[in-house]
Amino acid sequence: MIAGASDGHPAWLEYPPLTRSPQTDAACALGRQVSLYGASPSLRQAGDELVAGMERLLGMAVELVRGGPVAGAGILIGTVAVPELAALVAGAGIGDGDDLGPEAHVLLPLGAGERPRLAVIGGDDVGCLYGAFALLRLIGTGAPLPEEPVRGAPAAPLRMLDHWDDISGDVERGYAGSSIFFVDGEVTRNLARVREYGRLLASIGVNALAINNVNVHRPAVALLTDRHLDAIADVAATLHPFGVRLALSVNFASPILLGELPSADPDDRDVARWWRETVAKVYAHVPNLLGFVVKASSEGQPGPHSYGRSQAAGANVIAAALEPFGGVVLWRAFVYDCEQDWRDAVTDRAKAAFDEFVPLDGAFAANVAVQIKNGPMDFQVREPASPLFGAAPNTSKLLEVQLTQEYTGQQVHLCYLVPAWKRVLDFDTHAFGEGSTVCDLVVRGRYEAASSPATAEGGQPPSTGAPIAGMVGVANVGDERNWTGHLLAQANLYGFGRLAWQPSLDAEVIAREWSQLTFGLDEAVTEVVTSMLMRSLQAYECYTSPLGLGWMVTPHVHYGPAPEGYEYSRWGTYIRADRDAIGVDRGVAQGTGFTAQYHEPWRSVFEDRARCPQELLLFFHRLPYEYVLPSGTTLVQHVYDTHFGGVETVADFIEQWQSLERRVDPVRFGSVQRRLRIQLASAEQWRDVINAYFHRYSGVADERGRPLF
Amino acid sequence: MIAGASDGHPAWLEYPPLTRSPQTDAACALGRQVSLYGASPSLRQAGDELVAGMERLLGMAVELVRGGPVAGAGILIGTVAVPELAALVAGAGIGDGDDLGPEAHVLLPLGAGERPRLAVIGGDDVGCLYGAFALLRLIGTGAPLPEEPVRGAPAAPLRMLDHWDDISGDVERGYAGSSIFFVDGEVTRNLARVREYGRLLASIGVNALAINNVNVHRPAVALLTDRHLDAIADVAATLHPFGVRLALSVNFASPILLGELPSADPDDRDVARWWRETVAKVYAHVPNLLGFVVKASSEGQPGPHSYGRSQAAGANVIAAALEPFGGVVLWRAFVYDCEQDWRDAVTDRAKAAFDEFVPLDGAFAANVAVQIKNGPMDFQVREPASPLFGAAPNTSKLLEVQLTQEYTGQQVHLCYLVPAWKRVLDFDTHAFGEGSTVCDLVVRGRYEAASSPATAEGGQPPSTGAPIAGMVGVANVGDERNWTGHLLAQANLYGFGRLAWQPSLDAEVIAREWSQLTFGLDEAVTEVVTSMLMRSLQAYECYTSPLGLGWMVTPHVHYGPAPEGYEYSRWGTYIRADRDAIGVDRGVAQGTGFTAQYHEPWRSVFEDRARCPQELLLFFHRLPYEYVLPSGTTLVQHVYDTHFGGVETVADFIEQWQSLERRVDPVRFGSVQRRLRIQLASAEQWRDVINAYFHRYSGVADERGRPLF
Repeated sequence: MIAGASDGHPAWLEYPPLTRSPQTDAACALGRQVSLYGASPSLRQAGDELVAGMERLLGMAVELVRGGPVAGAGILIGTVAVPELAALVAGAGIGDGDDLGPEAHVLLPLGAGERPRLAVIGGDDVGCLYGAFALLRLIGTGAPLPEEPVRGAPAAPLRMLDHWDDISGDVERGYAGSSIFFVDGEVTRNLARVREYGRLLASIGVNALAINNVNVHRPAVALLTDRHLDAIADVAATLHPFGVRLALSVNFASPILLGELPSADPDDRDVARWWRETVAKVYAHVPNLLGFVVKASSEGQPGPHSYGRSQAAGANVIAAALEPFGGVVLWRAFVYDCEQDWRDAVTDRAKAAFDEFVPLDGAFAANVAVQIKNGPMDFQVREPASPLFGAAPNTSKLLEVQLTQEYTGQQVHLCYLVPAWKRVLDFDTHAFGEGSTVCDLVVRGRYEAASSPATAEGGQPPSTGAPIAGMVGVANVGDERNWTGHLLAQANLYGFGRLAWQPSLDAEVIAREWSQLTFGLDEAVTEVVTSMLMRSLQAYECYTSPLGLGWMVTPHVHYGPAPEGYEYSRWGTYIRADRDAIGVDRGVAQGTGFTAQYHEPWRSVFEDRARCPQELLLFFHRLPYEYVLPSGTTLVQHVYDTHFGGVETVADFIEQWQSLERRVDPVRFGSVQRRLRIQLASAEQWRDVINAYFHRYSGVADERGRPLF
Repeated sequence: MIAGASDGHPAWLEYPPLTRSPQTDAACALGRQVSLYGASPSLRQAGDELVAGMERLLGMAVELVRGGPVAGAGILIGTVAVPELAALVAGAGIGDGDDLGPEAHVLLPLGAGERPRLAVIGGDDVGCLYGAFALLRLIGTGAPLPEEPVRGAPAAPLRMLDHWDDISGDVERGYAGSSIFFVDGEVTRNLARVREYGRLLASIGVNALAINNVNVHRPAVALLTDRHLDAIADVAATLHPFGVRLALSVNFASPILLGELPSADPDDRDVARWWRETVAKVYAHVPNLLGFVVKASSEGQPGPHSYGRSQAAGANVIAAALEPFGGVVLWRAFVYDCEQDWRDAVTDRAKAAFDEFVPLDGAFAANVAVQIKNGPMDFQVREPASPLFGAAPNTSKLLEVQLTQEYTGQQVHLCYLVPAWKRVLDFDTHAFGEGSTVCDLVVRGRYEAASSPATAEGGQPPSTGAPIAGMVGVANVGDERNWTGHLLAQANLYGFGRLAWQPSLDAEVIAREWSQLTFGLDEAVTEVVTSMLMRSLQAYECYTSPLGLGWMVTPHVHYGPAPEGYEYSRWGTYIRADRDAIGVDRGVAQGTGFTAQYHEPWRSVFEDRARCPQELLLFFHRLPYEYVLPSGTTLVQHVYDTHFGGVETVADFIEQWQSLERRVDPVRFGSVQRRLRIQLASAEQWRDVINAYFHRYSGVADERGRPLF
């Protein structure tokens, strides 16, 4: 499974052999034995991984020794439940073992000097596995072994991927082949691939997985029935050693669709009983199920609105059924009017989630989290952070980002998304004064609400206890050999896990790590890959959607330029360009009032065109084409410049990649090269269409005389 | 089969009972017996139809008497091959029987006075069937019986419908359900429905039918194999009595796709032999096959261009195989560059067919006809007649029109197309001086070429003998009970046949006929239905595409407004609007030069914006929004006015139709009413989007202050 292949199949766990260096010497000096304390599946996985990884990376035979200390063993691995390991932790002066919670680990250097040893100690079995991967990452990236104890613990309790996989095997918005979980209407029997995936997930700390599409089409409703539950249990069991818990997306109308009840009204006793019985049956098969993901009353999906009930009422009936089993409801906040009349200039889709959920603050059961997309619209290239993150302090919230490149080039274009996610994580909502970042509030779950405004629906008390917190990503994985279609899109999968674990990590550090683990330590390769990754999002933004203007894409497909593709549609996505100006005024003074959903200072900053961040100018403001930007350039000239510039960057990518022809194996080299060439032609098309659009409306020629059509 | 139903299933052959009138009295006076000379399937069908039709229309029992004259028979029916009927024809002083060619008929009043009789005499058996339908049409529309001989003969030798039915059962651009010819990858076994269809076709004189899509996808290639040929033969045999011959659409790459040859190069001997052998096998099953329809080197379909051969070479290799069996090739002229770069403002798709086919004039075998869409683009609401009709005098040509409402409202919108077809038929190409209408040249096949220019490729002599001539329509029929989805869209099917038979018929006369045969003789109904039909095309044009501007529709779907839906595409369909002007200049002076493809005076008329027909102004010219039209209105105000006006007409349709609530049976009434309401909402959307588009570009407000968005 770990055996070498050059097509990207083992992704960043291929463990390419390292050339000898002081770092490899130090690693080799740890000796040829790994001593494993314990025998749980997770621990065995940790031991096997360490052995196989070190063997391949260091080119030496390593032996796994079970059951305790061995004279020759330079690496010890086990949990703090093992007294002698707990003693080591205590002895290291980094607190007692209790500080090492579940999933956490410490890499503990022992007996430096003549005979170096290292202990990998986990807060639990999965913590050991994470620790093993952490050690392998150090070795694999050529980092020195730690001289001080290095602790690792996840920032986000929940680090989850949502697969939008249909039971047919198709993947909604999937660009990497078919589903790895479903084949022709059945749950996969290819558990080997699931296991490989579990290994990848554990290596980056992802601990939860929804395997089916949030749009639960009719055949997938049956996942809750005996027909599929045994197979789901097999998938869950396969992933269990990797610390990954399964969730299922469920259809709110399941009681009806499974033919058992005439209604799905959450206030109906029969409905509540139906959910209780169904959940009990599901947990009988999958005892460690995380819970359910629900997209309700959204984009045609059924929901509580059909019965005049609130989103909270809808979530709570399912939550009550899950509660006895420790299960949770992950309730999507992606609720808006998808039948908007484009002639209606008052309704603003950007306001929808906030308007829907803030009045319900405190009304959700304790085991419900509201899962909020990063921006107020829908995974556009550039959006402000959703204002809902800074609101509803008595509601558990999750940050949802999109790995699959729906609006960001569909794994044909290179687009490394970690910088975008970091922007959201770092966004300071000012909900409780300065320093209330989305990361702290939502991902770490540190709500420090002093008092909640009296907006809660009904009289229910605010939920108490630790909130559900974390980060959810829509997966970019399919059954292609290299998992993600575009080989370099693996960096988004890798980066998501790393970031959810440690949001403070720099995007470039993550990119370098991924490159090194994937391609080895050739510095020329690392430099080029890191540079390409780091410039890719900005390049894509430049030639597709500068200044925060979204939706100029081919409808439904979301690939390729169509400046007015969504202009006259029902989706609430308008640009409203005319010969004088472009954009939607979302201000309070004369616009839709969206800015009022933010705390100060953002409210004022976004409201003021002079202070609004330039990259969001056309998200918040309607401006004439010759509006002068802070940079001194006019708006329309900025559009021209960025579009030409973005394409030049892509041309540069091709040259950069070309320089690696003899440094990357031919299969991976050619695969990336082919996509870059397609990207270039597509970027040129994007550039010329968007520039033509601005040119035709504005009548303004390019200052530098470049062709505009 | 003829039994009454009120859901439109028997369409215009329901024969609703007439209330008594002098006309019905006269028809009843013909007596209760029909004497049939002969027993062929077509003749028997003629006799049965006459009996059943008269019984239902007149409410009296009628008896069919076979084999010759009977004392009580007021109606005689047979061909001129029967000596005593030939004598009647001769005696009537309308020439001898030879004048009555195949398919022709005469209704001959005999012994007027005390004992009226009538002879229905056909040039052949099918002529008798057509005569029977002609007589029933007279009775059904309340017309007086003829007092003089009334001859009927088709103007177009070939009166054909092309079904774009896929073997899967889907219908490309079909809006009336699934195919009546294919079910789940097989030829239908529902021959009863085929028979019903044959009866409808015979009643309007359609004599040929291509049953499968011109885009011959892989599974349909196998229609040429034993797997399907028996079933096709059954369909052909079912239609045979109705005078309808079958054609098959074939894929040019069939020799490859059927796995038998490595090439489809028309100059390859093996390919020629393959076609000969294949055609022989097909004719062994279907001896009266008309031939093959071929879409080659077009929109991704394979063709001779793949081998560097001309369209003529491609057609001729297949034609040579068909020739021994009397079969023909119907070769589509719909050839253009569907990979155009929108940035290329020189290439003009409108010019493509002419440029492709004129140089090949004289190079096509005698049994090849080039099938030309009515306009140079693709079935847009308004186009000029294709200039190819007036060119290539040594090439047999067919006029192709579209019954299925791809761009004209998809059988949701009411759109009676006969007036549009008449415009093309009446277009005077001036190919041989004034009076060279498309109807005369192409549909009747009266090429009066004095000398052909030396443009023929190669040294082949011009084809001699009578050209293949006629009119082909893309069918609008599916397996919905009422055949066409929108009940009133039946009028397009009816009108196509009537017009191909007799192009001089007035569109309104055809509309009245159809209404009377379908709904009976209630004059209030006839008035409303005729009025609605006659205003419908103009209304649709008004709110979708005034001044000849096409392609402002949702891509691929072709329903609903998307002003720039095709603007940046590869399809050669551009409007090139900017803040100053809109449209493409197709003139010789400064434009693409398309006007040069027309004979004078059209060349000059189209070239001159002051003389160009207003409805085609933006087809031929690029004009500023405030250009003053001959009417005195500005262009942009004209757009506003027509869009508002068109929607008002639809609102009026709803009122008009409402007035028939108690005059039309509830099923048909409700069905039309529902569609009209959908049409109104859709028309409003169309109006507001197109108006907004013009408003946003031009900045010009509506003179009358109506909302523009």
